[in-house]
Amino acid sequence: MKSSRLEAFSDGVLAIIITIMVLELRTPHHPTLHALWDTTGISLLTYLLSFVYVGIYWNNHHHLFQVVRHVDGVVLWANLHLLFWISLYPFTTRWMDETELARTPTVVYGANLIGAAIAYFLLVQTIRRLPTSGHLDEVFGSDYKGKVSPILYLCGIGLAFIEPWLGVIPFVAVALMWLVPDRRVERWLEEEGKMHDGETA
Amino acid sequence: MKSSRLEAFSDGVLAIIITIMVLELRTPHHPTLHALWDTTGISLLTYLLSFVYVGIYWNNHHHLFQVVRHVDGVVLWANLHLLFWISLYPFTTRWMDETELARTPTVVYGANLIGAAIAYFLLVQTIRRLPTSGHLDEVFGSDYKGKVSPILYLCGIGLAFIEPWLGVIPFVAVALMWLVPDRRVERWLEEEGKMHDGETA
Amino acid sequence: MKSSRLEAFSDGVLAIIITIMVLELRTPHHPTLHALWDTTGISLLTYLLSFVYVGIYWNNHHHLFQVVRHVDGVVLWANLHLLFWISLYPFTTRWMDETELARTPTVVYGANLIGAAIAYFLLVQTIRRLPTSGHLDEVFGSDYKGKVSPILYLCGIGLAFIEPWLGVIPFVAVALMWLVPDRRVERWLEEEGKMHDGETA
Amino acid sequence: MKSSRLEAFSDGVLAIIITIMVLELRTPHHPTLHALWDTTGISLLTYLLSFVYVGIYWNNHHHLFQVVRHVDGVVLWANLHLLFWISLYPFTTRWMDETELARTPTVVYGANLIGAAIAYFLLVQTIRRLPTSGHLDEVFGSDYKGKVSPILYLCGIGLAFIEPWLGVIPFVAVALMWLVPDRRVERWLEEEGKMHDGETA
Repeated sequence: MKSSRLEAFSDGVLAIIITIMVLELRTPHHPTLHALWDTTGISLLTYLLSFVYVGIYWNNHHHLFQVVRHVDGVVLWANLHLLFWISLYPFTTRWMDETELARTPTVVYGANLIGAAIAYFLLVQTIRRLPTSGHLDEVFGSDYKGKVSPILYLCGIGLAFIEPWLGVIPFVAVALMWLVPDRRVERWLEEEGKMHDGETA
Repeated sequence: MKSSRLEAFSDGVLAIIITIMVLELRTPHHPTLHALWDTTGISLLTYLLSFVYVGIYWNNHHHLFQVVRHVDGVVLWANLHLLFWISLYPFTTRWMDETELARTPTVVYGANLIGAAIAYFLLVQTIRRLPTSGHLDEVFGSDYKGKVSPILYLCGIGLAFIEPWLGVIPFVAVALMWLVPDRRVERWLEEEGKMHDGETA
Repeated sequence: MKSSRLEAFSDGVLAIIITIMVLELRTPHHPTLHALWDTTGISLLTYLLSFVYVGIYWNNHHHLFQVVRHVDGVVLWANLHLLFWISLYPFTTRWMDETELARTPTVVYGANLIGAAIAYFLLVQTIRRLPTSGHLDEVFGSDYKGKVSPILYLCGIGLAFIEPWLGVIPFVAVALMWLVPDRRVERWLEEEGKMHDGETA
Repeated sequence: MKSSRLEAFSDGVLAIIITIMVLELRTPHHPTLHALWDTTGISLLTYLLSFVYVGIYWNNHHHLFQVVRHVDGVVLWANLHLLFWISLYPFTTRWMDETELARTPTVVYGANLIGAAIAYFLLVQTIRRLPTSGHLDEVFGSDYKGKVSPILYLCGIGLAFIEPWLGVIPFVAVALMWLVPDRRVERWLEEEGKMHDGETA
């Protein structure tokens, strides 16, 4: 099976998740910047954080399926499993935000991040099983970011037990780490192109 | 008519249905795990159940239209009919959840599941009429899962009259049954590929 | 410009409009069928009506762009204009429903339906201007449904002034009229196919 | 990397943004036109304005990626950055509307418009870096609209400090300016087509 419809569906789900969070931003009761900051300040920051996270998953997903073009039923479910964890972001973000970064909601947010990271890891494993995924290791290599992220999430959860807002620091660090563009897939696509040119020449 | 736009539209609708349910998860008033379980415990489980159901329909829909590539106006409406029933999932899920699995809402949820199952059956029938759907029977054969599901839904509705939460057991059983991947379509696509290779050789 | 992205965007917007209305269905406070009918009865019927209307527009849109494959900037805006009117359906449906079919909201709903019908008419006109739309008249001919619909909408508005629920009858009639599949586009695509076969033979 | 999935994801996000605003239109409590105007009048106008703005971005985005067909990781993030600013429109629109065009919310809305304009500018710059974007300058030339818009936004913010509703005038002017279709991309695509015809002739 081609991966095109899996990509289209995932695009749809991620597009909705990334945008419905804005429905939950409460407008301030007073028309002043002060009220905006008081009512919506934390909301806007947590919205930004979750927006970046969903953006990172979309980006990684996009890169992953540039390399893999055929999928089977197990991959479809592994993908839905990932989307399930990401779909909880608006809920855990909202809770963390409504309680103004209380301990338990921050820990639950971290657990949600770890859940999505594990689901992404499982998705990559189910793809690795496929006979057509030969290039995957070549392209992604050791994937150190994928390994560092859960460790940082765990640090965040640990720090949240000391002081909730401290826990958010590693979460932000993960987001920043992924924001630095990853050129491995592009380099591979380029070399593929050159190889084909070489063959036809 | 090609089925590509029908698939794109269905992807969109299913993507929205699967994700808007998260908007309806109420956040607990106290920042504790206990409050999370009390306020949102059942919601999270019913959300998971409905997420899996929509995922199953997306999966089946995806497999179905791998085999069928041309549609007519009747199929477009049969597809919209299916989407209508699935679009009610967020509503019936919410009611069942808000009443903490009361009898009538659980029965109504079961009726909604049956409605969608019938609509899917009708969709397959409208496709079977088409001259280009020759492979359908070959690929899907007796479709025992499609036949067992409505029976289990009816059992669930029956059990809900005795004790509401008992009724949910068959609903969960159907979801688990469908989660086991179905390799018929993949096997067929593979054989198709081999046949084409044979012909060109 | 190819019409593929216009179609994808319209699919997205229509998919959202058709499904967000379900977010506005209020769940009954009592877990009984009686309460379901009292609280949500009219809502479910108006939801069904608007679902069918959006489905009709999607269907017609789909058929239209099977024939037209190239668009320009004016068509993009004519299409957005149509989507704007359809995007108001959830709002006018909700008002009509919350007031339990009061006079003014029913008239406003009818005005919304007429707005969308005019926007669709304008979209077809902007496409007709294009040099590549030669087949349009051939395929759609006199388009009697497109002409009868606004007249029935006006009847509905007129009847709503006498008795609101009477006004809904012509609205339902329009929906039923369009539900009967329209085979003109399919016939044309078939003949196109035959002609091409003839040419290559 | 091909730009097709970036386009699909952006279509999804913009489709959601453009339609969820309608969820926030409050229905009047009385079933009269007077109540509709009182409760929802400003909302409908600001909804229309934001609908047109999102429509403009979709249109420009569509034209841009007709010319550019390959993207890299930096462009993906520049695109997400743009979508982030546009995703705030429903929030800033709602605030401006709930406060009935108070000073601060109107200024914040203007700042949001400027944010999106800057993000679009940065997106174009990241595309300009790419070796495959040679046609960009040719096609878009001096892009006077893109330069005039931020100036008008600033005027709007300035005027809002004097009298809030005055500030909305330049915002509306920008929308009207962009509504006039831009034929540069179409002309280029046409000439491209002719050149190819010439080469093959």
